[in-house]
Amino acid sequence: MTIRNFLFVMCDQLRADHLGCYGHPHLATPSVDALAARGVRFERAFVTSGVCGPSRMSFYTGRTMTSHGANWNRVPLAIGEVTLGEYLRRNGRSLALVGKSHMTPDRGGMSRLGIDPASDLGRSLAAGSFVEIDRYDGHQEPGSESGYPAFLREHGYTGERPWSDYVVSVTDDAGNAHSGWSMRNVRWPSRVAEPHSETAWTTDVAIRWIEAQGDGPWALHLSYVKPHWPYVAPRPYHAMFGLEQCLPPVRSDAELVDPHPVLAAYRTQDECVSFMRREVSDTVRPVYQGLIRQLDDHLGRVWETLDRLGRWNDTLVVFTSDHGDYLGDHWLGEKEQFHDAVQRIPLIVHDPSAEADATRGTTDTHFVSAIDIVPTVLEALGLPPYAHRVEGSSLLPLIRGASVPAWRDFVVSELDYGYRAARRVLGRKPGECRAWMLRDGRWKYVHWQDFRPQLFDLEADPAELVDLGLDPALAAVRDALHGRLGDWLGSLKQRVTASDDDVEHGTDRHREAGIPFGVW
Amino acid sequence: MTIRNFLFVMCDQLRADHLGCYGHPHLATPSVDALAARGVRFERAFVTSGVCGPSRMSFYTGRTMTSHGANWNRVPLAIGEVTLGEYLRRNGRSLALVGKSHMTPDRGGMSRLGIDPASDLGRSLAAGSFVEIDRYDGHQEPGSESGYPAFLREHGYTGERPWSDYVVSVTDDAGNAHSGWSMRNVRWPSRVAEPHSETAWTTDVAIRWIEAQGDGPWALHLSYVKPHWPYVAPRPYHAMFGLEQCLPPVRSDAELVDPHPVLAAYRTQDECVSFMRREVSDTVRPVYQGLIRQLDDHLGRVWETLDRLGRWNDTLVVFTSDHGDYLGDHWLGEKEQFHDAVQRIPLIVHDPSAEADATRGTTDTHFVSAIDIVPTVLEALGLPPYAHRVEGSSLLPLIRGASVPAWRDFVVSELDYGYRAARRVLGRKPGECRAWMLRDGRWKYVHWQDFRPQLFDLEADPAELVDLGLDPALAAVRDALHGRLGDWLGSLKQRVTASDDDVEHGTDRHREAGIPFGVW
Repeated sequence: MTIRNFLFVMCDQLRADHLGCYGHPHLATPSVDALAARGVRFERAFVTSGVCGPSRMSFYTGRTMTSHGANWNRVPLAIGEVTLGEYLRRNGRSLALVGKSHMTPDRGGMSRLGIDPASDLGRSLAAGSFVEIDRYDGHQEPGSESGYPAFLREHGYTGERPWSDYVVSVTDDAGNAHSGWSMRNVRWPSRVAEPHSETAWTTDVAIRWIEAQGDGPWALHLSYVKPHWPYVAPRPYHAMFGLEQCLPPVRSDAELVDPHPVLAAYRTQDECVSFMRREVSDTVRPVYQGLIRQLDDHLGRVWETLDRLGRWNDTLVVFTSDHGDYLGDHWLGEKEQFHDAVQRIPLIVHDPSAEADATRGTTDTHFVSAIDIVPTVLEALGLPPYAHRVEGSSLLPLIRGASVPAWRDFVVSELDYGYRAARRVLGRKPGECRAWMLRDGRWKYVHWQDFRPQLFDLEADPAELVDLGLDPALAAVRDALHGRLGDWLGSLKQRVTASDDDVEHGTDRHREAGIPFGVW
Repeated sequence: MTIRNFLFVMCDQLRADHLGCYGHPHLATPSVDALAARGVRFERAFVTSGVCGPSRMSFYTGRTMTSHGANWNRVPLAIGEVTLGEYLRRNGRSLALVGKSHMTPDRGGMSRLGIDPASDLGRSLAAGSFVEIDRYDGHQEPGSESGYPAFLREHGYTGERPWSDYVVSVTDDAGNAHSGWSMRNVRWPSRVAEPHSETAWTTDVAIRWIEAQGDGPWALHLSYVKPHWPYVAPRPYHAMFGLEQCLPPVRSDAELVDPHPVLAAYRTQDECVSFMRREVSDTVRPVYQGLIRQLDDHLGRVWETLDRLGRWNDTLVVFTSDHGDYLGDHWLGEKEQFHDAVQRIPLIVHDPSAEADATRGTTDTHFVSAIDIVPTVLEALGLPPYAHRVEGSSLLPLIRGASVPAWRDFVVSELDYGYRAARRVLGRKPGECRAWMLRDGRWKYVHWQDFRPQLFDLEADPAELVDLGLDPALAAVRDALHGRLGDWLGSLKQRVTASDDDVEHGTDRHREAGIPFGVW
């Protein structure tokens, strides 16, 4: 069947290992698992940065953080960058958004080029060329870009700040309200009923939108804000899991002995100070799992909609996350750093084509990356590859069982911690805070500007507990990985104003252009 | 004296070693030497790419080729890039152009962002934010962007193509006309009288413009198209030098034994096939020297103008070139490759400030680069440094004798030969043709995508005749240089939508923004 539609489901801060099909022993996720049964589950999928904004900009542009330049949350994606929505629009399609995009308008770029932010072009650029059906970025009081506040008020959650007062507030056993921003309070349920929660609202909007498309071709980014903090879950999900059903923190006391300077600086930040205490992760982990289970239940509603409308036959479905969550692993909270808890993501792709039948329900172990989504969608929809900009590779050959002898054998992820308190702890200036992780089948190498490297032997130490960054016996390994990282940086695509075809057709044409240099 | 004005003199394809003050034994260049006596002569100045377009875009943006992305002639500078002219305009100044800029409009970028190329903004972007007083890029019949064709016709050089028919045509001893595109013909003089030559015209326009500025502050890019090919010189410069007054080609037979694959491919191209023959370089070199001597004479007129107007007291003067010329050195013609004949350029800076008095007439041996011009000018004129985009460093601390403990100890230059016939000889695709040179005080290391490296020991072999790229004894040296190159790539500036101040002020501010994550 020809692929006509594209459904791009993203969760926010969802660890790969917190899904049934990715091996969680107690957290059943039947809907995600059902998608895996219909498609290919990528076992080695990684983000380009363990930070929402940069990671999403890579998902949306098909380009690495170094290339798209939006290296932190709210750093605008330069208007010179082209997103999937724009590629689709160039080809008579469009990309709808329900939920989070984390796009920050490049107002400076627009002003410089005389583009009115209120014009159609300005608004489209500000939206990253998504058609925003309902924009809901989460973890802040939503405004007019989302129907969620009105929906909440309709259902009796009144006041100026219904999200703060209800959605991320909780009611304790005595009936008192508390803020869910304090993690000690997330053991109690949200003050909204489950059908009025963020995940339910986002799913409702998406289903209504899909239904409204009829048989017309469509593309939708269904982008949940959960299980990202605040870790507040509605009843009954807030108490669905006991601690014994949670994964314990992966960490060892040895990790705190002579730690890497940047990690030591991170551990002075609130989220790490908190998550270093077992009480915190013991409180949060069950709720985090509840939020995932809730997501899975709502995904079941989406799958049912596709079923009812016959859309499994003509819809490419991608399920993924923008990064993971430490939850206390390695004495860290939140994300950003380079352990697999953060960098590895779930990625499941359902390709309705007959060519993909042989791989349904299988697991793929190639190294794949967030930058591979754009080229996958472009190929699936029969559109040009824009290969002079797009740095990823289409996953379709893998999904369709083609021979892919030249597939990459490593992934790279990046960090710029310039906006973080750790920068000041370390006495660094903005622009001096970059790091890169190169991870292959055996090694994870992290190169820090002006600090010693990290190195993990993932065969001997899959839990990444022993940093070999200073092991003299492994100097040659580190040098080789450092060299590969440099070659990778040199492989990024910077010639964005001329296509590969332009180069091909312009090669050795100076004579035709009337410039016959070099002749005797 | 406060610096009010900026005069940025660039020659095209002028080798550093073809100037008196840079050591040429027979080619006297009293005007350039006089500037050196007034300022600082940089002995180790290098381009970012040995190709006109990419090199100039680095001079004009303060950014490396990888960062500005215009990696070949006529590859448009993306409209997201900011040039010196725009920085000046933001600050109530402007940058005039007389001569060559090699800017190619980013029509695709303008179209995408709804910018009319005929609007003021569109025209300014197309001009790289130069105010084009007289745009004259050379080596093609000029059009309406220059007054030169009309000037030629006024002086009796009639017809549709006065440049082709007269400026780059020659008259042989029998009075017959020949094209100067054929290098065999350049032993004869141009069919224009010297006062009507390109260099004379460009100088005339510049002097008139400077005179018209009165005491008002001004900034001018005086950008000559010579001594770039076609190597046609007007009488008497065509015959001013005998072969015995020219530098002999620097090359050895050993260079042709088991040569580097990319150089071997280059040597199948017209300009190398020609310049490998001694007859060709013997014919061209005297004329090349004549063109330089002519330039020097006209620079004398510019200096006289500054003198007469009192402008030496308040004008920053920069003299440089966009790259050199092989002229048969290393069995190569033209440019692009990484030997010093091409990569090293003259760079002389006259700073009128009293702080610079102590260094007048001195030579500086720091490694400096084309990307240093923008920051030098910005600092000299008291403007913001735009340090999140600009990758170079101001030369003023060096010129003013300040202590600069952290100055770079190497330079990097880049090449993408995707548009060249050599690409097809080698069976490469566009996007697979990149190379980087890292040159420090002792070593020159060239890293090629998918080909072996080159390595020269500049202490033992200053003429770069012995490629040590395969010497097993130097593997550790090459690895170390490769690692430095990777670190350099990682140091380039990609966060162009947020300034360093934005980062500084935005650091650790999530609580103030109402996002108090990570607290217990």
